Amino acid sequence: MEAVDRLAAQLVFLAESEKLKAVLRRSRPMGLTRRENSAEHSWTLALMAVVLAEHANEAIELPRVLRMLLIHDLVEIDAGDTFCYDVAGNTTKAERERLAAERLFGLLPADQAAEFRELWEEFEASATPEAAFANAVDRTMPLMQNLSHEVTTWQEYGVSCEQVIARNGTIAAGSQAVWDHLASQLEEARRRGKFGEG
Amino acid sequence: MEAVDRLAAQLVFLAESEKLKAVLRRSRPMGLTRRENSAEHSWTLALMAVVLAEHANEAIELPRVLRMLLIHDLVEIDAGDTFCYDVAGNTTKAERERLAAERLFGLLPADQAAEFRELWEEFEASATPEAAFANAVDRTMPLMQNLSHEVTTWQEYGVSCEQVIARNGTIAAGSQAVWDHLASQLEEARRRGKFGEG
Repeated sequence: MEAVDRLAAQLVFLAESEKLKAVLRRSRPMGLTRRENSAEHSWTLALMAVVLAEHANEAIELPRVLRMLLIHDLVEIDAGDTFCYDVAGNTTKAERERLAAERLFGLLPADQAAEFRELWEEFEASATPEAAFANAVDRTMPLMQNLSHEVTTWQEYGVSCEQVIARNGTIAAGSQAVWDHLASQLEEARRRGKFGEG
Repeated sequence: MEAVDRLAAQLVFLAESEKLKAVLRRSRPMGLTRRENSAEHSWTLALMAVVLAEHANEAIELPRVLRMLLIHDLVEIDAGDTFCYDVAGNTTKAERERLAAERLFGLLPADQAAEFRELWEEFEASATPEAAFANAVDRTMPLMQNLSHEVTTWQEYGVSCEQVIARNGTIAAGSQAVWDHLASQLEEARRRGKFGEG
């Protein structure tokens, strides 16, 4: 493929990626009442990875973490955001997202399509130190956001403290330090009635 | 500073950075009628840098470009977004943003505060290949967004084609290939009456 054709394909992909700004999550940014979209969420995660890299359990290649975080939610353009406590939604999530990855990354030149696909699969498998840290970061901000709000999405959607701990204990797999910090805040939030009944 | 204190300071900085999601730009994401916020804009730029790195005029260190783009707009939390065609606003922009950088990056541990300050100054000076490419990317998406909309911010705010070319010719300093691609589209947009009178 010639450089000029590669560029044209890449710009089509980037135009398509704009749609992530219309995918709404359940969480709300700190200080705001509106719901967060997956594009601004992805920015936060990448910034967090830069700032918190030193707290990863293992040595990580930060550039790969960043590329992973920047693209990991793009599949939601087709598959939608699946609330992490939605049991039914999560049974079909993998297949919906696999098809989305095929279509979206397929807009890119073949070498980049393969690279992005691999990055996304690495993130999903969460087996490398980079993916474990990226997943830890992905779980951390929604907790921080919820802890900052008067009314939490846990209350809104009936999510118990036990569910939150079960779901987010994976943070410790990427950064024990971050999890230790959050765990004490979750305990405090439980005392203040910030969780649903589950 | 102990690791646990560093982490606490970093999380304060990250909580503060959430405010970038409330800073609205003039531009609108493709396909949406609402204005874009500077957080989702920053995500787009980082993703663009990953996808388009091969088109930089000079060899670049992509990780530095990414860190630069992820933090370059944070000063807007205090200084607001200054429309790039706002002549009056741009005379006071540098000082407002310098104070903002001092306060915001100052929330971080000293080594990171210095690192972020340097990255931001490098971006602003636009003198290294990395900063030139980051600035090219920063200018490219608003043009693509405008070109995709029925009504452009150029029409809304009376910005002429000559102003757009004068302001965005800097794209060529970072990526001649991207600028060549856009220049022909701007010419077509001129024929279709997509600019204001200036």
